[in-house]
Amino acid sequence: MAHVHSDGTERRILNSARRLFAEKGYEKTSVQDILNDLHLSKGGLYHHFTSKEAILDRLNADEWAVTARLLDALIRRTDMSALEKLRTLIISAVDDPEHLDLVRSQLALLKDPAFFTANMRFWSAKLPESFRSLIDMGVQDGSIPTPYPEEAAQLLALLCNYWLMPCFYPTGRDGMEHRIRCLAAMLDAIGVPVFDEALASRAVKGLMALMPDEGQSASA
Amino acid sequence: MAHVHSDGTERRILNSARRLFAEKGYEKTSVQDILNDLHLSKGGLYHHFTSKEAILDRLNADEWAVTARLLDALIRRTDMSALEKLRTLIISAVDDPEHLDLVRSQLALLKDPAFFTANMRFWSAKLPESFRSLIDMGVQDGSIPTPYPEEAAQLLALLCNYWLMPCFYPTGRDGMEHRIRCLAAMLDAIGVPVFDEALASRAVKGLMALMPDEGQSASA
Repeated sequence: MAHVHSDGTERRILNSARRLFAEKGYEKTSVQDILNDLHLSKGGLYHHFTSKEAILDRLNADEWAVTARLLDALIRRTDMSALEKLRTLIISAVDDPEHLDLVRSQLALLKDPAFFTANMRFWSAKLPESFRSLIDMGVQDGSIPTPYPEEAAQLLALLCNYWLMPCFYPTGRDGMEHRIRCLAAMLDAIGVPVFDEALASRAVKGLMALMPDEGQSASA
Repeated sequence: MAHVHSDGTERRILNSARRLFAEKGYEKTSVQDILNDLHLSKGGLYHHFTSKEAILDRLNADEWAVTARLLDALIRRTDMSALEKLRTLIISAVDDPEHLDLVRSQLALLKDPAFFTANMRFWSAKLPESFRSLIDMGVQDGSIPTPYPEEAAQLLALLCNYWLMPCFYPTGRDGMEHRIRCLAAMLDAIGVPVFDEALASRAVKGLMALMPDEGQSASA
């Protein structure tokens, strides 16, 4: 019943869950693991979250809020082109170890039809809007000279989150480099030259880091 | 128990289900509707199919068998290039009224996570193999000069079955024409010039026919 320090407890639960999910995977982490980690009672956790699913939903919502804030900040900047802003947005997804940990921790969960379907819906409906705002700016400032702003936004969201992902389309490091070169050539052809050499190599590194074995052997 | 004429009954059940699914949609058709249509007893149907789902699975398997036979026949032909074979395969999907009826009848079902996930798995794992065999022939005969045969096979399967579908990415006829021009430009850029003007306009027509209202208003 005590509501004192509730924000502190909530934050501690989220931090512990994030770390345990990353270490053990979402599915192998139990609510009890989180309670043990924090020396917390069941009631102390259920006061904040109704289930393990609710904790993951909150972690993903927080992650999305970070991206949305980055997007807002990028949109307001005047010292870079829209194309550079779009690159920065994509780099934030493939280059942030904490973000990669969160994605990696729920890869097994993506085999669950309900979770997979919810993700696909997000990638087809909501995520393209974020890309679209930057692409429209790029059409204006000339850095993204595409006749296909809506299509490019949909394809960036779909292909970067689904087709590039080695959990859906398994491949090794060479295959991933080849796949990203293919995506770069297609996006260049519709006036969206976002995958330059630098972004391509960071994307390969980030995507391969999602496969624990491949990532380690490739960086060795 | 009588096994006499079982093939005949099975065929009649499949034909009736196919027609009723197309008329009413899969979800609004009951097993009882099929029984009424055929003046058949419950036992007579359940002798052949354990459920309505099993009937739909069989219709889809039969449809896939037709495509696989067409693919085999195309592979053996010597009077056309691999590029023309690939076009013929795609046309068979967007131009056959019976195939479009079957797809249309289960559009609502694609909202079901289990059914959607099973379809996405088929499009990412099995379907690319069919495209891949023709693309490899096209690399050989020079009609599909792509450095990205595997990527092109995956993208054709994913984009034609998911991204182009107005049930997943809603759009009108103009939007669909624009989307297919975008796809054509991207595929051209990676050496897969499969969407010429003729295929593009047939694809628009077939895809828009999947949306009952749009299809009718557009063809008026």
